[in-house]
Amino acid sequence: MSKTLQELANHLGGHVIGDPSVCITGLGTLDSATEGQITFLANPRYAAKVETTAASAIVLPASSETFGRNVIVVDNPYLAFARLLTLFTSRPRRAKGIMSGSFVGEGVAIGIEPSIYPGVTIADGVRLGDRVTLHPGVTLYEGVVLGDDVTLHSGVSIREGCRIGNRVTIHNGTVIGSDGFGYAPNGPSWFKIPQIGNVVIEDDVEIGANTTVDRAALETTLIGRGSKIDNLVQVAHNCRIGENCILVAQVGIAGSVTLGKHVTMGGQAGIADHVTIGDNAMVSGQSGVFNSVAAGAVVSGTPAIPHKVRLKCAAVYPYLPEMRSTLTKLAKRMRKVEEQLELSE
Amino acid sequence: MSKTLQELANHLGGHVIGDPSVCITGLGTLDSATEGQITFLANPRYAAKVETTAASAIVLPASSETFGRNVIVVDNPYLAFARLLTLFTSRPRRAKGIMSGSFVGEGVAIGIEPSIYPGVTIADGVRLGDRVTLHPGVTLYEGVVLGDDVTLHSGVSIREGCRIGNRVTIHNGTVIGSDGFGYAPNGPSWFKIPQIGNVVIEDDVEIGANTTVDRAALETTLIGRGSKIDNLVQVAHNCRIGENCILVAQVGIAGSVTLGKHVTMGGQAGIADHVTIGDNAMVSGQSGVFNSVAAGAVVSGTPAIPHKVRLKCAAVYPYLPEMRSTLTKLAKRMRKVEEQLELSE
Amino acid sequence: MSKTLQELANHLGGHVIGDPSVCITGLGTLDSATEGQITFLANPRYAAKVETTAASAIVLPASSETFGRNVIVVDNPYLAFARLLTLFTSRPRRAKGIMSGSFVGEGVAIGIEPSIYPGVTIADGVRLGDRVTLHPGVTLYEGVVLGDDVTLHSGVSIREGCRIGNRVTIHNGTVIGSDGFGYAPNGPSWFKIPQIGNVVIEDDVEIGANTTVDRAALETTLIGRGSKIDNLVQVAHNCRIGENCILVAQVGIAGSVTLGKHVTMGGQAGIADHVTIGDNAMVSGQSGVFNSVAAGAVVSGTPAIPHKVRLKCAAVYPYLPEMRSTLTKLAKRMRKVEEQLELSE
Repeated sequence: MSKTLQELANHLGGHVIGDPSVCITGLGTLDSATEGQITFLANPRYAAKVETTAASAIVLPASSETFGRNVIVVDNPYLAFARLLTLFTSRPRRAKGIMSGSFVGEGVAIGIEPSIYPGVTIADGVRLGDRVTLHPGVTLYEGVVLGDDVTLHSGVSIREGCRIGNRVTIHNGTVIGSDGFGYAPNGPSWFKIPQIGNVVIEDDVEIGANTTVDRAALETTLIGRGSKIDNLVQVAHNCRIGENCILVAQVGIAGSVTLGKHVTMGGQAGIADHVTIGDNAMVSGQSGVFNSVAAGAVVSGTPAIPHKVRLKCAAVYPYLPEMRSTLTKLAKRMRKVEEQLELSE
Repeated sequence: MSKTLQELANHLGGHVIGDPSVCITGLGTLDSATEGQITFLANPRYAAKVETTAASAIVLPASSETFGRNVIVVDNPYLAFARLLTLFTSRPRRAKGIMSGSFVGEGVAIGIEPSIYPGVTIADGVRLGDRVTLHPGVTLYEGVVLGDDVTLHSGVSIREGCRIGNRVTIHNGTVIGSDGFGYAPNGPSWFKIPQIGNVVIEDDVEIGANTTVDRAALETTLIGRGSKIDNLVQVAHNCRIGENCILVAQVGIAGSVTLGKHVTMGGQAGIADHVTIGDNAMVSGQSGVFNSVAAGAVVSGTPAIPHKVRLKCAAVYPYLPEMRSTLTKLAKRMRKVEEQLELSE
Repeated sequence: MSKTLQELANHLGGHVIGDPSVCITGLGTLDSATEGQITFLANPRYAAKVETTAASAIVLPASSETFGRNVIVVDNPYLAFARLLTLFTSRPRRAKGIMSGSFVGEGVAIGIEPSIYPGVTIADGVRLGDRVTLHPGVTLYEGVVLGDDVTLHSGVSIREGCRIGNRVTIHNGTVIGSDGFGYAPNGPSWFKIPQIGNVVIEDDVEIGANTTVDRAALETTLIGRGSKIDNLVQVAHNCRIGENCILVAQVGIAGSVTLGKHVTMGGQAGIADHVTIGDNAMVSGQSGVFNSVAAGAVVSGTPAIPHKVRLKCAAVYPYLPEMRSTLTKLAKRMRKVEEQLELSE
């Protein structure tokens, strides 16, 4: 693919300084790009490299020196680079149809241009939107509904009655709608509480590999529009994840948790059941959240406390043995002083 | 389905106060139930709602005010509700037989009324009990034995020689009997120790999605009768999990750990190798257990300590910086005092 | 199988003391071994059992008393035992060929003696080495290359363009090459950064069940030769794992992390993005590493600090409430002293 600098600027909604007719055939980093490629400056620390990069053009913010180079000025160069990378690397999808070796039940509705690979099993009555791609070993249980432009990678299972929105991608081995973990004590043993709800995944969600999202006990476990979930994450029954949340790998969210919009959870962080996390809150990696978190708060540690407090505490923690020893000595010295002054403790 | 209040009371082993002939067709919560439905009171805090709920009947404990409503009195209303939910929502299983697209090896014994879906692969010599359900993509390696009424969801793998009891349900993508993680140092590299044992899962166990239970090195990794294991849990080789244990999502149990009966482990908790946990002990979420835990103990934190102690320590933790600063000042003041008194430190 | 003691000594590179013609037919522990079996002494604590074990021979180090028994003297008895266990338990591999119910694309190159089970799907143009075993439900995307003697257990997915070396074993449900987790902020929503790199797994790597290794954004996520990875581990995009590393179950490694050679990470430990861990470093279970770790260091806790320091701190931690109370009292006593001495604070 070859595009002129002007064409790229139009694509990005930016403007060219320099020669708009320069031909661009690919992308690289400030260090690795070669002639014919375009690169980007996101971190002001590297501003001097704009002068020296071998790239034929640079995407940069308005605040940057251009050094007389051919550039595209944009508001958000990192986003622009992602968009150019998408432009240069995306290949047109070719519908494979319903391939031999797949098993499609009765009364299944399939939209236009499907790619259904061998080893896919679709239960009776499932409904698929347009341009759905189901890789080998995908299993759709009864009552599943998929929107348009959904891609399910190999080994994904969608359990009975779950609904997936448009433009959703789910990576390999992820399970949507397994039973929530609910049992009533029955003497020393456990009586299973039927999990008869479902999971609803809204539009533009992406979910990583080997993640699990459990069906609700009675109602719906919800993954809000635009949220991105990494690998090996657990979302338990009845959770409501807001829009545009980020859940990094191995996060665990217990039952009936509510996340607001645009919440970020670092890797391996956990949230106890029934907790609410406010909009734009951030939970640091490996934190354990046992109480609700206000909108915009940043928390860390187990149990989670404000991140800034936690950083100060963690810095003091290695001095604990010294502090205890100092304390013991001080108490001894204090007794001596008190004796001398004939003061009682 | 429609049942009289008396029929439901008989099912629960409870007794009716009010009109035993009332017809019940479904369930709801105290707030959501409508006429014709039954609800339950488990938390005394909501006792007043018994008077006002729109439900036609309420399941409650003997200690509760009935407000002249039609009720069923039981010992354990939460359990009763789970049982009623099961009664109203369970659908009769319909055996699908051995479906086209499944692969059944030689010398495989299959009990009555199986449901074996497309994409199932059963190795030579496997033995299945009655009413076994194997969803798409289930793989049974050689020498596997399944009991009666076993349900394996899509993508479950049972490795060579593992044995599964009766009424066991395993959710999607879970792996039973992968090799234990054992290597002998061989200079800078690692020599694999053959893992030639197996996994035995006793009756009435339920295991969530994408969980892994490793085969023993030489003998058996055991999951005791009635235990319930959530999603993404790791049980390493040679572990012996007692009866009726609860392992919440993302728990990790290292090699050769022994859990007694009715042990509860919160989400993301971990246990180091060779540790023993006593009957009825509880390990709080995200804890890390490095030493054995007595029966009935409740522990938390990493390294785990008694939960009550941990709570007090966690409450003091945010004051660490202040404590250090106070300590430094006190030491300074002490030196001043000692100088004045001409005392040596 | 039956071997003379001399034959076994030759296999191990050890030497016999006693009768080299003794016939050995199996292995056991010092306690469990019976006549005809060989056992081993790895822990000097059990040296006295060499005299009393029912085994017909013992593998032990040069430093050990032999009690007149038939023995093989080796440098590393634990390794020797692993090698004997391998010798006695490994069964010859029987190639199954390309079985019915597998789907092999166009232009696929397959080496000699493959075992390709039903439910395997191999995309166009994939290249397989000799003696490759692909269990049911394995999916190989386009451009995948597997070396010789590779075993992929059921449900493993290898995504587009990933390369697997020789003698690699991957257990069930593991995903190699799912997209790295990278998004550019786009107002309140997230714009996906294409993940166009791949994963390269070098020779002699073993990976457990339901683990995930993400493809690089632009280049390669690398798993070094001889490394061993347990179940449910997450390796994010752009990581470079050195040779002979050990990653225990549920470890999580964020993006662009570099591990040196022979690094050991305990279960559930996590590493933040862009961190470097030096050769032979050890990270204790459940630790959270936010800063780079020097070669040979042993760290633990979150945030990770030197393990020895951490142990001392953890021992003091339960005294935190007592320390705070002592501190408060000391401050009070100090004020009293200062008043008496007419000193200002």
